[in-house]
Amino acid sequence: MSHSPFDRQTAVHSIEVLRPEFERELKTLVDIPTVSAQVDHKPDIARGVEAAAALIRKAGGAAEVLRPRNPDGNPIVLGRLGTDPEAPTVTVYNHMDVQPADREQDGWTSEPFEMTIDGDRYRGRGTTDDKGPALSALFGARYARQHGVRTNVAFLWEFEEEIGSPSFEAALEDHRDRLSTSSIVVSDTIWISRGRPAVPAGLRGLQGFLLRLRTGQRDEHSGVTGGAARNPIAELMGVVCECFDPYTGQVRIPGFYDEVIAPTDEEFAGFKASGFTVEQFMKDHQFSSLRSTDPLEVMSRIWARPTFEVHGVVGGYSGAGLKTIVPPYAEVKVSCRLVPSMTGSRTAQRVREFIQARHPDIEVITDHTLEPYAGQTSGPLADAISSAIEFGFGARPVFVREGGSIGAVLSMQKILGKPISFLGLSLPEHGYHAPNEFFDWGQAQGGILAFADYFRRLGG
Amino acid sequence: MSHSPFDRQTAVHSIEVLRPEFERELKTLVDIPTVSAQVDHKPDIARGVEAAAALIRKAGGAAEVLRPRNPDGNPIVLGRLGTDPEAPTVTVYNHMDVQPADREQDGWTSEPFEMTIDGDRYRGRGTTDDKGPALSALFGARYARQHGVRTNVAFLWEFEEEIGSPSFEAALEDHRDRLSTSSIVVSDTIWISRGRPAVPAGLRGLQGFLLRLRTGQRDEHSGVTGGAARNPIAELMGVVCECFDPYTGQVRIPGFYDEVIAPTDEEFAGFKASGFTVEQFMKDHQFSSLRSTDPLEVMSRIWARPTFEVHGVVGGYSGAGLKTIVPPYAEVKVSCRLVPSMTGSRTAQRVREFIQARHPDIEVITDHTLEPYAGQTSGPLADAISSAIEFGFGARPVFVREGGSIGAVLSMQKILGKPISFLGLSLPEHGYHAPNEFFDWGQAQGGILAFADYFRRLGG
Repeated sequence: MSHSPFDRQTAVHSIEVLRPEFERELKTLVDIPTVSAQVDHKPDIARGVEAAAALIRKAGGAAEVLRPRNPDGNPIVLGRLGTDPEAPTVTVYNHMDVQPADREQDGWTSEPFEMTIDGDRYRGRGTTDDKGPALSALFGARYARQHGVRTNVAFLWEFEEEIGSPSFEAALEDHRDRLSTSSIVVSDTIWISRGRPAVPAGLRGLQGFLLRLRTGQRDEHSGVTGGAARNPIAELMGVVCECFDPYTGQVRIPGFYDEVIAPTDEEFAGFKASGFTVEQFMKDHQFSSLRSTDPLEVMSRIWARPTFEVHGVVGGYSGAGLKTIVPPYAEVKVSCRLVPSMTGSRTAQRVREFIQARHPDIEVITDHTLEPYAGQTSGPLADAISSAIEFGFGARPVFVREGGSIGAVLSMQKILGKPISFLGLSLPEHGYHAPNEFFDWGQAQGGILAFADYFRRLGG
Repeated sequence: MSHSPFDRQTAVHSIEVLRPEFERELKTLVDIPTVSAQVDHKPDIARGVEAAAALIRKAGGAAEVLRPRNPDGNPIVLGRLGTDPEAPTVTVYNHMDVQPADREQDGWTSEPFEMTIDGDRYRGRGTTDDKGPALSALFGARYARQHGVRTNVAFLWEFEEEIGSPSFEAALEDHRDRLSTSSIVVSDTIWISRGRPAVPAGLRGLQGFLLRLRTGQRDEHSGVTGGAARNPIAELMGVVCECFDPYTGQVRIPGFYDEVIAPTDEEFAGFKASGFTVEQFMKDHQFSSLRSTDPLEVMSRIWARPTFEVHGVVGGYSGAGLKTIVPPYAEVKVSCRLVPSMTGSRTAQRVREFIQARHPDIEVITDHTLEPYAGQTSGPLADAISSAIEFGFGARPVFVREGGSIGAVLSMQKILGKPISFLGLSLPEHGYHAPNEFFDWGQAQGGILAFADYFRRLGG
């Protein structure tokens, strides 16, 4: 029986010994309420930055604080374990800011910013999103380097992910010379079910729109003018229904689906093996019904197909009861989720041309764009991820997709220009953004093992 | 040459002499800010009630104050000139409450609650809506009775019309025994253009609806769930577009138009002769475009056809920019204007059945109902109104319609059960509900003459 540090039994035992230290360090991080969305937590962000940098130094690394271009933005912590110019460098992305939490209002059973340990569960805001995974990657890197792995590991820890990474891309540009890397691994994604590791092979993008129509200047009496007056809310409703079928979601704009690449058979096999169930999806999101109840259809709809979505309406009366006016103006907020290889600009052009050809006086304003991201399901990095996850968790991962976008991924792709892999450790039951968020030792331990093995494979 | 008091030249001269008194009394009324919508004007309402009753007594009549059933409601002043049991009684309805007005905010060129005289114009809040017409009717009644007309004239002066007459119908019920009358005349309507007297031969009604759909419990991430999640705002948009064509206004619900009675040829002739122009309508209401530019079509749409109108949407995100959520819930506020001989209940049933047969999980809540009102365009009362208006203004009126509803008309029809005529004196340029509202001596003098002659004809 081998006692090499990368013999699985040996590694599991060695990592088990680290558990008290892991719990202590995670509590140090979680007990600092690094809420990026609330300005009164700015001092906590500063404390969190110091604690994160200190942690990397304690693990034997070097840490520096990258200041954002916007003086009101939050810094990024850049850490390094290893600076061997002969060895490859892998950059691990995590974020250290968290969602807001209020014990009373949100129904936490303990203080959200005082981590509590309940058996193998670590409860507190940020435990799973994303401090626990960040710490697992750091422990994995330390383990690997302590046991002869030469791969340099850089850590890019953002403090603005929960507010849409407003300073991240500019900071990458400004500090590009210090961020040179061979590849990137992102650890901020969620498996579909426990025991079935999942890796996203693609992220959806987003193209937002504001549709606007003005037909008058003020609320008018619907008795005095109704019938002759145009109704801008109603007309925009008509436009939305021309753009897509509001019941099935099918988009009616010519060419909308032209660039969509259907998942491969291998990807569909991954979807089926992911442990996804419609029941769990409905429960997690508290839906009373869905557009489809077929699991593969639901997965395809949320991961692999573009959408047309209505987010809200501005204009008219929305107080209690009824106010019988004809509104002078309306705005409808819509967006399209995009899948590889759609682009925001082509989608924006198709939507705009479709609407303006039919309704010249409707203003189509393009809002936020996030391009979709296509990851790799084969090749050396994808193989290394799969093998490392098997090492950590005893099962090879399936390739799924993320329905949402991760702005930081697109920024890193754009500025750093290197392949990006995903090695997420969170589970649906951990409760991303939810009350009583938790992480657990099983995922931490498997994650430390997987990261250690991944760094070893990249060094090989 | 005759010098009878109902010789027109004689009457015009006699009324001209009353002008200073009319102006003094109108100023007394207008200078009391009887704003029913603002609770801090309650003392002014009380002063207005006293002033109105005093005015009737000064004109030689009796006045009493009818208290409303709801102690927070405003009273009604009931006045009488004449109590001859052998003579018919006609009840004149006006209202003495006014719209709010703020000099700075609304852009008045003088204090809204200090009536100013500018040539033959009387500027101030309530001059034309509805204190000037009320005073004209009172002066007309006094003139008629002073010159031998036996008709008893009762005055029903409401103080809650501008807030939808919440206490009026109950007060009519409670005081029904004191309100016995042969007929009713309402003086709270607007001509289409100066020099062309117009009388409404019908009022549209209203049936309100709230359409509601819940598909979840909270905002969900449109990346994580979009495509599989139903979108309740979008589905209600679809429902609205099934109910009617949002561009033309044509209602698609089977049977919706079944009871609609088209205006007679005589009514269409009245529409054409009313002085209505599309340009003026657009200017008055600040519309940049309409569903039609044909005058007869526009008049038919606002006066003689039912509508389906969207007033607003509840649910989703309506702040600045975009928030990429799938909303859990939406409500759309709609209403139908009704024309004679539609009914609120039949319309409500058709709309509800149409929607629920197609979308069983959409909740259709019926809101406020106002039945349409069909007036008379022929018969003794209609003839008397026409002849009286010709006496007052030198031209016979055309019959048009009112697009809106007057709640008090329906209440009087229901409780008093007697025919209702309309003898309005206001002009579009007087600015109902607008800044710098005014009334003018020409309309007052013609109105006094017309009312005097109308009471004479009813006594004959």
